[in-house]
Amino acid sequence: MKIVCQTSDLLTGVNTVLKAVPVRTTMPILYCVLIDSTTDTIYFTANDTELGIKTKVLGQVEEGGIIAINAQIFSDIIHKLPQGQVTIESDINDVVKITCEKALFEINGQNGVEFVGLPEVSKEHSITLSQFNLKELIRQTLFATANVETNKLMTGEYFEIKDGRFKIVALDGHRIAIRQTSLEGAFDEGDMIVPGKTLSEILKILPDDAEKTVSLYFTDNHIAFEFNETFVISRLIEGSYFKIDKMISNDYTTKIQINRKQFSECLDRSTLLRKSGNDKPIILSISDGNLNLKVSSPLGKMDEDIEVSKEGKNLVIGFNPDFLIDIMRAVDDEEVTMFFTTPQSPCFIRDEDARYIYLVLPIAITEGNY
Amino acid sequence: MKIVCQTSDLLTGVNTVLKAVPVRTTMPILYCVLIDSTTDTIYFTANDTELGIKTKVLGQVEEGGIIAINAQIFSDIIHKLPQGQVTIESDINDVVKITCEKALFEINGQNGVEFVGLPEVSKEHSITLSQFNLKELIRQTLFATANVETNKLMTGEYFEIKDGRFKIVALDGHRIAIRQTSLEGAFDEGDMIVPGKTLSEILKILPDDAEKTVSLYFTDNHIAFEFNETFVISRLIEGSYFKIDKMISNDYTTKIQINRKQFSECLDRSTLLRKSGNDKPIILSISDGNLNLKVSSPLGKMDEDIEVSKEGKNLVIGFNPDFLIDIMRAVDDEEVTMFFTTPQSPCFIRDEDARYIYLVLPIAITEGNY
Repeated sequence: MKIVCQTSDLLTGVNTVLKAVPVRTTMPILYCVLIDSTTDTIYFTANDTELGIKTKVLGQVEEGGIIAINAQIFSDIIHKLPQGQVTIESDINDVVKITCEKALFEINGQNGVEFVGLPEVSKEHSITLSQFNLKELIRQTLFATANVETNKLMTGEYFEIKDGRFKIVALDGHRIAIRQTSLEGAFDEGDMIVPGKTLSEILKILPDDAEKTVSLYFTDNHIAFEFNETFVISRLIEGSYFKIDKMISNDYTTKIQINRKQFSECLDRSTLLRKSGNDKPIILSISDGNLNLKVSSPLGKMDEDIEVSKEGKNLVIGFNPDFLIDIMRAVDDEEVTMFFTTPQSPCFIRDEDARYIYLVLPIAITEGNY
Repeated sequence: MKIVCQTSDLLTGVNTVLKAVPVRTTMPILYCVLIDSTTDTIYFTANDTELGIKTKVLGQVEEGGIIAINAQIFSDIIHKLPQGQVTIESDINDVVKITCEKALFEINGQNGVEFVGLPEVSKEHSITLSQFNLKELIRQTLFATANVETNKLMTGEYFEIKDGRFKIVALDGHRIAIRQTSLEGAFDEGDMIVPGKTLSEILKILPDDAEKTVSLYFTDNHIAFEFNETFVISRLIEGSYFKIDKMISNDYTTKIQINRKQFSECLDRSTLLRKSGNDKPIILSISDGNLNLKVSSPLGKMDEDIEVSKEGKNLVIGFNPDFLIDIMRAVDDEEVTMFFTTPQSPCFIRDEDARYIYLVLPIAITEGNY
C-alpha cells in the first residue's frame, strides 16, 4: 500500500477515529487504526466492538492496500510531523514507512485483513437534523445519565422519534433531563437506548455546524451517525426504558422566575462549603419577590438573596446544588422558570414551548442541615 | 478588623502568597493566609518556614487588626465572588465575615498573633536588575537542577555576583546550565545557593516586565526578592557549590552550527520512539554539511537529516534527546553552535558573548543502541 496525504488531513482523520480505540481489549488488533485504500479512497477505521468509527481521509492512493497500525504510535507520529506532504507505505512484511520531508519513521504494522470491520447498518430507518441541533440536544441531557453500571439502562439516553418530533431523555434516579425538537419531513417512528459513552464521543467529534446535517440510522441492535464522510456505529442498550410520562407532572403550588446567571453563580459559590465530606444541601427559602439561599457546613456558612418573581405559596426546600448547577448549564434562556409543590416533591424546570423539561428531587431538610 | 477591597485586588494578593502555603505542615496555622492591617496598610502573608511571601493589597482599612484565614478556603471564596467591593470583617472570636453584594460568607479564622512571621532580612547587600532579565535567567537554567534530594546542592541554583556580573549555575550530574548578565552600577560581591523550589515559585509570580526592576537582598542564611510591593524571602541551601570552572573547557575538534527550530522539532519527534521502557539514545552523525539523527527502539526507527555548517572532524555521538530538548528551549538564538571533542566527552553549547554555556554528557553508543 502507498498513499500520499497532507499532515492536516491525516490529523483530522486520526483524531476522529481515535475515540473508538479501546483502552483495554483482549483483541490486540483493535489497538490499531485500519488504513484501507483498496477502493481508491482512503478510509481510517477504529472499532472497540461497542463503538466503531470510519472516516474518509483526503489523499492520493498510489498503490491500493490495507494495513493496521498501532493507533497511539501512529497518532503520536502524525502529531509531531511538520506540515506538508506525508507518504505512508507498507511492504509485504507489514513494515510501515512514514516519510515527511527529510524525516523517516519505520514501524511494524499488522496485517489489515485481521481487523474486525464495522457491522453493516441498514439505512432503511433514518432521521436527519442539523449537526448543531443534535450536539446541543446531547450536551443538554447527557449529564443526567448515570456513570455507574448498577443500572445499565440509566447509563444510556432514550431516543424517541414520534409524531414528527425527536425526543431525548436521560435520568439517573435523582433527576431527569428531557429535550425535544421538531423534525422536518416525514420519518419512521422508533425508539432506542443509546450508550452514554457513544454520545460523549459524538460530542467530541461532531462539529457544531448549524448549516450541515447529521443522519441517524437505526436498526434493532445498532445506531449509526453519518456526517462529513464519517460513520459512527454503536450497539444499542437492550431493554425497555423507564415510563417517563408517569414521572412528569404539570401541577405546582409555587412558581418562580429567576435570572439564570445570578442563580448559577450563587449555586457555584455554595459548593465551596461542601468539601468537608459532610455535605449539606443548599436551602432555598422562597418568599414574595425573594429567593434566599443558605448553606451551613463545618467549613462555614453562606447566605445570599436573589430577586425573583414569584407566584403561589412560600416554600422552604433543600437541594444538592450540583444537580441545579448542571441544569443551569444546560439551559440557555436568560430567565428560567421553576415549579414546586412541597418540600418532598420534585422541582420542575421547563420552558413554555416544552423544548426542555428538567426534574430534580429535593433533599429532606433536617435539624442538622440548617 | 475590617477592610474593604476590590475583588480583583484580593485575587492578585491571594494568588501571590498562595505559593508559600505549605502542602503539609506540623504547624496548622501555616495553612493560613495572614491578613495584617495594623499599620493602616493591608498585607497578606504566607510562610512555609523555608519560603515566605508578603504582599501589599490595595484597599481601605476601616478598623486595623490581624487575622489568619485558611488559605485554600479564602482563595476559593475570593475566586468565586462577583467583581466588586468586598468587605472582610473579623470579630473578637475570630469569626470572619466576607460580604460582596448580596453574598455573605462566614468562616472561622484563627488568631493572627499565632502566625509565624517572616524573618527580617537586612538590605545591606543587594543587586537590582529588570524583572524580565531575572525571570529569563532563572527559566533558562532551572531545568538543569536535580529534583531528587539525594544531593541537596544539586536541587538549588548557584548565584554569583562578581566583577560586575551576575551568574546563575545549575547542574544535576548529567548537564550544566550557566547564564550570566552584566550588572549596572557597583555591587557588593557574594555567592549563595538558592533552593530550586523558591525559584520555581518566583517564576510563577514575577511579572516579565522589562521596564520594572526586582531587587535581591542576601544575608548568610536568606535571600529576599522585592518587586511590586511584594517580598519573597527564602532560606539558602548550606554548603560549598561545585567547582564549575574546572568542568568547562573551550577545546573542541568538531563544531557545528544548526537551525534551532529544525533541530528541536527533530529531537521532539525522536522522543516518540522512547516510550518502550528500553530507552535508546539519539545518535548524531556529523559529517560535512550534514547532521544525521537516528533512533532505533522496539517501537520502530527514525532517520532524519538536517543541514548544518560544520568545522573539524566527523563524529558519531549519542545523547538523551530530552537533555538537548531542554537546552534548545532555553536558548532563543535562531542558530546555535555546538562544540564536541570525542564521543565520550561533553558537548558544549554556547554563544560568542558567553551569555550562556550549556554542557551535556553523551551516552555511550553500544551495539544494542544502533
